[in-house]
Amino acid sequence: MILTKAQLLECQRRITPFIHRTPLLTSHLMDEMVGAQLVFKCENFQKTGAFKMRGATNAILQLNASKKAKGVVTHSSGNFAQALALAARTLGVKVYVVMPHNAPCVKVEAVENYGGIITFCDASLEAREKTTERIVKKTGAVFVHPSNNLEVILGNSTVGMELLQEVPDLERMIAPVGGGGLIAGTALVAHFFSKHCQVIGAEPKQADDAYRSMQSGKIETNATANTIADGLKTNLGTLNFPIILKHVERIITVEESEIIQAMKLIYERLKIVIEPSSAVAFAAVLKEKENFKNKKIAMLLSGGNVDLNSLPFGR
Amino acid sequence: MILTKAQLLECQRRITPFIHRTPLLTSHLMDEMVGAQLVFKCENFQKTGAFKMRGATNAILQLNASKKAKGVVTHSSGNFAQALALAARTLGVKVYVVMPHNAPCVKVEAVENYGGIITFCDASLEAREKTTERIVKKTGAVFVHPSNNLEVILGNSTVGMELLQEVPDLERMIAPVGGGGLIAGTALVAHFFSKHCQVIGAEPKQADDAYRSMQSGKIETNATANTIADGLKTNLGTLNFPIILKHVERIITVEESEIIQAMKLIYERLKIVIEPSSAVAFAAVLKEKENFKNKKIAMLLSGGNVDLNSLPFGR
Repeated sequence: MILTKAQLLECQRRITPFIHRTPLLTSHLMDEMVGAQLVFKCENFQKTGAFKMRGATNAILQLNASKKAKGVVTHSSGNFAQALALAARTLGVKVYVVMPHNAPCVKVEAVENYGGIITFCDASLEAREKTTERIVKKTGAVFVHPSNNLEVILGNSTVGMELLQEVPDLERMIAPVGGGGLIAGTALVAHFFSKHCQVIGAEPKQADDAYRSMQSGKIETNATANTIADGLKTNLGTLNFPIILKHVERIITVEESEIIQAMKLIYERLKIVIEPSSAVAFAAVLKEKENFKNKKIAMLLSGGNVDLNSLPFGR
Repeated sequence: MILTKAQLLECQRRITPFIHRTPLLTSHLMDEMVGAQLVFKCENFQKTGAFKMRGATNAILQLNASKKAKGVVTHSSGNFAQALALAARTLGVKVYVVMPHNAPCVKVEAVENYGGIITFCDASLEAREKTTERIVKKTGAVFVHPSNNLEVILGNSTVGMELLQEVPDLERMIAPVGGGGLIAGTALVAHFFSKHCQVIGAEPKQADDAYRSMQSGKIETNATANTIADGLKTNLGTLNFPIILKHVERIITVEESEIIQAMKLIYERLKIVIEPSSAVAFAAVLKEKENFKNKKIAMLLSGGNVDLNSLPFGR
C-alpha cells in the first residue's frame, strides 16, 4: 500500500493527456506584502474548475476493462462529483453520483451536464453511504472515494509535480486540507522529488480536524464546521492520514476573517476567481509572514467553483 | 498624422519590455453557447490591471529627453491614471494626475502608490481641464490624453497585434468602446495585418455615443451615461474618430442586463475577474449569435479593476 516515486511518475504520464497543465501566477505586490517569493498554482483553471479532475481521472484510468464496463460511483455534493462525471464521460465510462436532496441546483446541473446519473438521498453521511452501497450492489459499479483512495491521491500529486518541475528550488508548498487527498499527494511529491521543500497544511480554525489529528496522532472529526471554506469541512481518511502524519510539516489554522481577506486580495491582485477553500493557503502565509520571510513558496489554489451570488465581499 | 504599418511594428518593439504579453483564454462551453470559436484576450492580467498600460508606456517612451525631464500630466479617475503613473515611475519620469475630489479612495491610493503627484479638483470636465492646464503652465509637463492621443492609440494597438500574431486566421475582433483609443488601435491592426478580420465595437445602450457617431458621421456625446460599464462613459475624440469611422465595421449596443449576464458567465466559466466594461464585448457576441456562427472571434477584455464590494451578482 506504500506509494513509490515510480508510481507518481507513471501517474503523471497517464493522466497528462486528459487534464490541463495549469498556469502559475505571481505578483510583485503580494511578494512585497509577505517579504517572500510567492507562486500561485491555479487549479481554478483546471477542467471542471478544480484539482479534483486529476484524481478522478487517474482512478478511472486504473480500472481494468471489466470494471470500467460496470462504471463508477461516488457520493459528493462538491467538486469531486463534477470531476468524476467529466472524467468518466471522457473515458467512456458510466458514472453514478449520490447527492443529498439539498445540494445546490448549480451543482446538480453541472453533474447532469457531464452525463452523471444522479441518485438523491438524505443529507446525512449515513444516508449517502447506504445509497452508494445499494448502487454498488445493484450495478457492480466501483466506488471511488473523493479523497481517501490511493489512486485519487496519486492523481492529486500531479499538482505538486508540475510545481516542482517548473520551480525546482521551491522551499514551501502550502495546501488547503479538507479530506486530505490533496495535501497527501503534495507531501509525497515533496518527499520524493525535493530535498528542501516542506509541505504545510492550511485549515480554517472552524474545521481544524487535521490540526487536531496531527496533535493527537489519530483521526479527529469536525462535529460541526461553521466555515466559508465549504470544501474543507470533511475529515481525513485512513489512507491519507498516515501519509500526512509522516510527510506534512505542520498545519496552520486561520480565522474566517483572514480567509475572506486573503480571498479578496487574490481577486483584486491576481484577477482570478477562486473558491474560499483556495484562499485558506494564502491566509496561512499572510498570518505567519515572519516564518516565511525570503522563502520561495507555492500556494495550491484548489479550485474556482464559487457561488457568485454569495461572495463574501459585502456591500 | 496618418499612422503606418511600420509605426505599429516599431511601437510593439518599443513597449514590449515594459508590458506583460497577456494570455488568451478559451472555453469549450462558451464556444458551444455561441456556436463559434471564441478567444478572450486577457488585459485584466496586464500591469495595473488594464490595457491602458500599453498606450501610457508608449506615450512616455516617445518623449525626447527634455520633455521627459519635465514630466507628464493627465486627468483621469480611472485606469489611465494608474497606468501613466506606473509607466512614468518605471521610466523615471515625474507624473502629475488630476483627479476629481469624489474619486474612489482605492483609485487615489493606487495612483499614490505608483508615485503619482495628485491634484484634486471639482468633478466637472471643465475643472479637470483647467487644473491640468495650470499644471502644464507651471511645470512644463506634457499632457497625455487617455484616449485621444496618437501615441496612446499606437500603444493600444499592440493588444490586437499580439492577438493576430497568435491567431492569424481571426475573423472578428470585438472591442469595447469608451474614449475610442482601444478600438482605434485595434482597427488599425486589422487594416494593416489581416485581410479578413473585421473589427466591431461593443457599447452599452446607456452610453451609445459611438454608435450614434458612426450613424451621423460626427462625434456625438453622452449627456448622461447610466451604465455599470463605468469605463465606457467617455466620448470619442478628434484623433481616434476618423480611424474608427474608416476602419470599424459597426457598433453593437447592449442592455445593462446583458452586460451583467456576460460578466457572470466570464467569472463562472473562465474563472477570471474582469470589470463590467470588459463584459460588454462578450455581451455583444451573445446578443448577435446568429451573425457570429462558426466564426473565429476574439474579444478584448480590457481590464479587471472592479470594486468587489459592488459586484452586480446580487444576493
